[in-house]
Amino acid sequence: MSPAAQVDLKEYCLDVARRAKSAAAVVSQLRGAAKNQWLRESARRLRGDSAKILAANSLDLAAAPGYGLTEAEIDRLKLTPARIDAIAVGLEEVAALPDPVGEVIESTVRPNGLDVLKVRVPLGVVFFIYESRPNVTADAAAICVKSGNAVILRGGKEAAHSSRAIVDLLGIVAAETGLPADAVQLVNTTDRAAVGHFLKLAEFIDVAIPRGGEELIRRVAAEATMPVIKHFTGNCHVYVDRSADLEMALRVTVNSKCQRMGVCNAAESLLVHADVAAEFLPRVAAALAANSPPVELRADEHARQLVPTAREAVETDWYTEYQGPILAVKIVNSLDEAIVHINHYGSHHTDAIVTRDLDAARTFVARVDSAAVMVNASTRFNDGGQFGLGAEIGISTDKFHARGPCGLKELTSYKYVAYGTGQVRE
Amino acid sequence: MSPAAQVDLKEYCLDVARRAKSAAAVVSQLRGAAKNQWLRESARRLRGDSAKILAANSLDLAAAPGYGLTEAEIDRLKLTPARIDAIAVGLEEVAALPDPVGEVIESTVRPNGLDVLKVRVPLGVVFFIYESRPNVTADAAAICVKSGNAVILRGGKEAAHSSRAIVDLLGIVAAETGLPADAVQLVNTTDRAAVGHFLKLAEFIDVAIPRGGEELIRRVAAEATMPVIKHFTGNCHVYVDRSADLEMALRVTVNSKCQRMGVCNAAESLLVHADVAAEFLPRVAAALAANSPPVELRADEHARQLVPTAREAVETDWYTEYQGPILAVKIVNSLDEAIVHINHYGSHHTDAIVTRDLDAARTFVARVDSAAVMVNASTRFNDGGQFGLGAEIGISTDKFHARGPCGLKELTSYKYVAYGTGQVRE
Repeated sequence: MSPAAQVDLKEYCLDVARRAKSAAAVVSQLRGAAKNQWLRESARRLRGDSAKILAANSLDLAAAPGYGLTEAEIDRLKLTPARIDAIAVGLEEVAALPDPVGEVIESTVRPNGLDVLKVRVPLGVVFFIYESRPNVTADAAAICVKSGNAVILRGGKEAAHSSRAIVDLLGIVAAETGLPADAVQLVNTTDRAAVGHFLKLAEFIDVAIPRGGEELIRRVAAEATMPVIKHFTGNCHVYVDRSADLEMALRVTVNSKCQRMGVCNAAESLLVHADVAAEFLPRVAAALAANSPPVELRADEHARQLVPTAREAVETDWYTEYQGPILAVKIVNSLDEAIVHINHYGSHHTDAIVTRDLDAARTFVARVDSAAVMVNASTRFNDGGQFGLGAEIGISTDKFHARGPCGLKELTSYKYVAYGTGQVRE
Repeated sequence: MSPAAQVDLKEYCLDVARRAKSAAAVVSQLRGAAKNQWLRESARRLRGDSAKILAANSLDLAAAPGYGLTEAEIDRLKLTPARIDAIAVGLEEVAALPDPVGEVIESTVRPNGLDVLKVRVPLGVVFFIYESRPNVTADAAAICVKSGNAVILRGGKEAAHSSRAIVDLLGIVAAETGLPADAVQLVNTTDRAAVGHFLKLAEFIDVAIPRGGEELIRRVAAEATMPVIKHFTGNCHVYVDRSADLEMALRVTVNSKCQRMGVCNAAESLLVHADVAAEFLPRVAAALAANSPPVELRADEHARQLVPTAREAVETDWYTEYQGPILAVKIVNSLDEAIVHINHYGSHHTDAIVTRDLDAARTFVARVDSAAVMVNASTRFNDGGQFGLGAEIGISTDKFHARGPCGLKELTSYKYVAYGTGQVRE
């Protein structure tokens, strides 16, 4: 890039961020009805204008082989009328959620008569950096604006045309329904330097949310001058306690591992109490071998005596997030050993225990330091929709501000409001 | 410092951080009774061992002139039996607060029968960097441990002996009451390089809280690899609406400015609606002139016509946090002008309106983007104790995670806990 083009890019990013900040002041004050009208009308228009969206999508599909996308990736990129309808339904679902802005989270009347309210307010401007699925463009715009924020969307180049068509449509409907045009902006360049420029603009941007590979998230966390909500993948565990219902343990293990393998809340390690290992391990190994695709086991020596077909696990296996048909397997001699293993090797994302023992459940819940701890349920439930938050912009692996699924509330802050009758401090 | 000493310092900081992380795992699991026993017994011992604390304090006082401390600063450093009692009372007050750890913040039963709980948990390890008042050492230790965290205290060199005596006492009582010795650690060097080392240790430290001058906070925010809760000072406003009760406005203005001038929630600017300026300004000017010390006014041209003794305000005055006996004064022609001025020049800390007009109050509350918005009350109420949070570790000027007074809850995160009966995802 020429020096002049570099200056242009920097100016462009500054202009986008400034516009977003101005728009955020307006969006923060919108009534819920205005935001919902925008969402519902956008859903209607998406269905009505699906030909336009599909035409844009076909440009992305044509370019996809040139970007080296796999067939699975191209399939996720591809839009159909049914998938556009699903996007529209997503907008309608966000419209149906209660408006988080203005909610009184806590309140108290002080002895001097001062009424103190803690009131939910938007964060301001969200900078969202994400992978190339077009539905994410619509979802993120909906969640950010519904929670009273403006959003700067930086999608992958692979879905550039589809995302542009969707954002243009949202912008047209915004103009018609009284929302500021800059409430939702799509960055018009896929130049990676643009991300670096935005990450310096803490004056205008209140939070950066990167979603994608670990490398992207680490880069954003390192360069950002504003807070970052990080979404690392998960090294999730299922621990089968000695008191477990083994039928249930089988169901939960297979579901946690196999229901969808490439996602952050899929299980990567299985820990089994020694007392039930001889009975449980051969059964679960058979079930996992019968899955399509079959799941390869990497086991410690004790477990390999029970499942001879398993490969030998090495130290790195306990840390690995396979996101595919591999499961690490270890036999533990106690609940304590399981908890220590999970807290040491895990990624503090989602971990499950299967047990009938109340004390074991309580101990596991209290001591496993993860965003979500499941008792007798699949790890796959750690999800905004499944937990009842509605739509989510991701699953935070941070402890600060937001942990676990990030929905509308996680995109808000609060202010204190105190109503008095002339009170002063003595 | 020699290269060997530099290596030693780095190793020392790493060791402190590792110990804190280990202690945090234990503190997070403590019952409220254990934490409260430690607090109450420490309070008792502080009173009983006050001679030891006073002896340590006298070493700090002897060194104070060498550090160039002013008389006011030396006074704040000085401990007396009464002040040690006040510190002890502070510990007892923290003991009396409800335990935040384990609180179920929200819960829902999903249609599939899954019980989803959002449970409050500690953040982990707090790195607290603060100025030189010895009482802050005890307060911070109490708040951090009560909220289930371990804390690394980095106090100023001016109070090094006093802080060491207090932390040693807390450690002795910790050993007696079953708390880990490393729950509260005081950094044993005032070498500034140590702060830099700690700020790189995100693996062990969950949050950094700098309290002190703006330069310190900016340095910490720039260097930290973990989240930072920032406590900038406040450029706070009082806006006197045209519908204000002018007696109340006088009281609120004088209290906001004069009750304590060097603090972050003291008023620095006064905005007066043009309709009441002729009546109000001369009265408030007289009251402020009669204060001890008298408050100097820096006013715009319109206001100077009403208060000829006022100096002419320049652009920088609207941005300035005097933290002393100066007040910027401006006449505005509308509520809107006041709000725009506050959001532009203010620091989003604490701003007050005095009004009898419900609509004006609601508009001011909704549009002023500050951590605390006061209606008919002094800005000085933006304080953890005044808002009913109990003790506070500071007043956050961030929007992310914590805004306004930071008490026990602001030092926590949460985890999701889901109880099932074998649920799997379809």
